[in-house]
Amino acid sequence: MTSVGTVVWLTGLPSAGKSTLARATATRAREQGRAVAVLDGDELRQALWPDLGFSKAHRDENVRRAGALAGLLAAQGLVVLVALVSPYRSARSVARGQAARFLEVFVSCSLSVCEARDVKGLYARARAGEIQGMTGIDDPYEAPTAPELVLRTEEWTVAECVERLMAALVELEASSAPGEQA
Amino acid sequence: MTSVGTVVWLTGLPSAGKSTLARATATRAREQGRAVAVLDGDELRQALWPDLGFSKAHRDENVRRAGALAGLLAAQGLVVLVALVSPYRSARSVARGQAARFLEVFVSCSLSVCEARDVKGLYARARAGEIQGMTGIDDPYEAPTAPELVLRTEEWTVAECVERLMAALVELEASSAPGEQA
Repeated sequence: MTSVGTVVWLTGLPSAGKSTLARATATRAREQGRAVAVLDGDELRQALWPDLGFSKAHRDENVRRAGALAGLLAAQGLVVLVALVSPYRSARSVARGQAARFLEVFVSCSLSVCEARDVKGLYARARAGEIQGMTGIDDPYEAPTAPELVLRTEEWTVAECVERLMAALVELEASSAPGEQA
Repeated sequence: MTSVGTVVWLTGLPSAGKSTLARATATRAREQGRAVAVLDGDELRQALWPDLGFSKAHRDENVRRAGALAGLLAAQGLVVLVALVSPYRSARSVARGQAARFLEVFVSCSLSVCEARDVKGLYARARAGEIQGMTGIDDPYEAPTAPELVLRTEEWTVAECVERLMAALVELEASSAPGEQA
């Protein structure tokens, strides 16, 4: 028998901490005996569909595909942690509809701090005019209005964020699948 | 810590039994405590990249993407069962190169029996001239020359095939990762 899994969708500005939190939470969830997959937006783009760019239509398709894949894996009982900027509300709403159990996590961090971190050097390149359509600079980030969880990476350590995320996951698993085995 | 996973690649004619064996093996592997994902070729096409058709180039790209995805998930410690016709040797070779541990399973069944099963009605449509490029009819299936395992679905039951596949998986896990924990 396959139990129902969960899609944990981490959205936020570039360098907000999505991938870091996805990987740290994956480690914790595995330690607790869960089957886990991490889908990192950058990896998906590079490895699976490099044909997609950063236009609105391509961003939407990128999020749709990531959501479809996450839903497909979660239906097999996996906890699927998706780390993806996914800047548009409407596209995230589509992703939510592709999973039986969905936990939207807003990885919240101010633009100034994200830009100071600039993990991949994208903000610097956007400020220099070398790339266009950079989320937070010249492309909008639509913050979630009602996420299941907000993680403030400026204020809380990675360990604290992981604790909060795991607590939300456990609560969701318990509330939305009464009688089901973990 | 993440242990190394395995890509189990089931190749064979349409209706040879790939999806059936992938799902049955997944159930068994989960029962034994493994984290498992099944990637079904038809599901990937429909859900993720419906833009790909059945030309040689698109088939190759379909197999490349499935292999990249499988490798990405196996690198996270999952046993990834891929059920995909993947008719061309060269494309399967690319998939092998995308995984640290790869188990190629030739799901062997005669064309006549596959055509009699015709799970999706594709053989009938191909014979009627309604679809072109059907593997086994008017598009080649290049059988593996040196697969790790051959499963003869005309001769063996699903349970027997699953037993053999699990034995091969256990053997590969033991041989290619000395000292690693399961």
